Amino acid sequence: MKFLDKLDKAVQTNNSLLCVGLDVDLAKIPQTILQKEDPIYIFNREIINATKDLVCAYKPNIAFYEMHGIYGLQSLIKTIELIESTGLPVILDAKRGDIGHSSAAYAKSIFEVYKADATTISPYLGSDSIEPFLEYRDKGTFVLCLTSNSGAQDFQKNIFKDVAHKVKELNQHNNCGLVVGATRLEELVEIRRIVGDMPILIPGIGAQGGQVKTTVKFGVDPKGNRAIINSSRSIIYASKEDNFAEAAGQEAKKLQDEINQYRWAK
Amino acid sequence: MKFLDKLDKAVQTNNSLLCVGLDVDLAKIPQTILQKEDPIYIFNREIINATKDLVCAYKPNIAFYEMHGIYGLQSLIKTIELIESTGLPVILDAKRGDIGHSSAAYAKSIFEVYKADATTISPYLGSDSIEPFLEYRDKGTFVLCLTSNSGAQDFQKNIFKDVAHKVKELNQHNNCGLVVGATRLEELVEIRRIVGDMPILIPGIGAQGGQVKTTVKFGVDPKGNRAIINSSRSIIYASKEDNFAEAAGQEAKKLQDEINQYRWAK
Repeated sequence: MKFLDKLDKAVQTNNSLLCVGLDVDLAKIPQTILQKEDPIYIFNREIINATKDLVCAYKPNIAFYEMHGIYGLQSLIKTIELIESTGLPVILDAKRGDIGHSSAAYAKSIFEVYKADATTISPYLGSDSIEPFLEYRDKGTFVLCLTSNSGAQDFQKNIFKDVAHKVKELNQHNNCGLVVGATRLEELVEIRRIVGDMPILIPGIGAQGGQVKTTVKFGVDPKGNRAIINSSRSIIYASKEDNFAEAAGQEAKKLQDEINQYRWAK
Repeated sequence: MKFLDKLDKAVQTNNSLLCVGLDVDLAKIPQTILQKEDPIYIFNREIINATKDLVCAYKPNIAFYEMHGIYGLQSLIKTIELIESTGLPVILDAKRGDIGHSSAAYAKSIFEVYKADATTISPYLGSDSIEPFLEYRDKGTFVLCLTSNSGAQDFQKNIFKDVAHKVKELNQHNNCGLVVGATRLEELVEIRRIVGDMPILIPGIGAQGGQVKTTVKFGVDPKGNRAIINSSRSIIYASKEDNFAEAAGQEAKKLQDEINQYRWAK
């Protein structure tokens, strides 16, 4: 199934635009989990079981797995297999970007080795760095456009609109998306106007300061879809105790409902 | 030892600005190597043994290892250990870039898990995405500035000078560098003027079309140093037969000499 169909189906089935970021930090997970053989995977499994009816996608950030070396990547592979078994799409947040053969090698790694449904990439190296990812027509590729951090002011401010236009142009097979931080509301309006109903992945809700109401209102397409609102820490670390999964489920439900409240608001 | 000292020492000891890119493609290595247990590592080992007196650094691009999954990353780790044993610096070309905790996780992965001496990163997310790498004061961080591919025209043209100025400003601990493609001669002059004697990693010689003479002349600092001229395919695939290592050594020697011919040219 094409990524966009898988995403649309999950949005409809679970009535949700919420994406949960699986950015596991061993310093923040309960002691009882840490004592198990594969704590990263076990933590993810419990979070996924508690939230799989409430979300439209999961977004593990590969940085948090790479920092644990081979072991971390093995936990990531198991986590992605588990998500696949739920039928929900996995967006592997990897922000890769290189040229020619190197870009093709990264695309192969993300889509064939890790078997993600979608990924994030950096646009810095231009169209020919993006194209090897787009050759995977059934996979989704979200290009960084405007991010939620303060450093976004350094270089992105002069080019994010060019990025949006270029990605729209490259979206011949409906397999592109953009990443726009939830703290960039004015620009989000403009970007949504440029890209029509292309999916926009929006991190930065909660911990990073983005407001739910305006983010959803300005982020969705005219039908109230195609915005993927990501929250990581505020959900997966809702509790640091043994009830972490239950707490994550409650937090996810709250955010899912809050998002839905504004999806069709005028 | 600080990366810059290690680099300067290698440049002096081997009288070389040449960096060999270890971008192993299983389709291009001899059949006799492919039959061995760890062909990627064995291929690299033979190349390293044949070139270790002729280069100032090695640059494996992690994409070519990631595409083989866990096995590829294990070969990369062994390759880096081998390079470390020669005393030459390893620049792990990874082009990472993320924000906050995620950027710190990538830096940890590159410098502590893979134990590289230096790396390449993308500037798209701005200074706060670069800083976690710079906290490793003994490691080197090369920020992408202007690349050799055609797509560089898409977004970089409006911001590469801002990137050079920003990295110069961030270089408080002499641990920064820039990546500038060998096909960008006019801009290379300008960038060298901006960053003084900061090291510039210059890929794009040979296969990608950059000319040695002008690249070296415009790339080096006033003392004829601090340009790291990378060549990958033209050296490591100089022959596809069993004499590949010997051929790589000859090709490296030729390029080393050609580079030295122009280091002090006016």
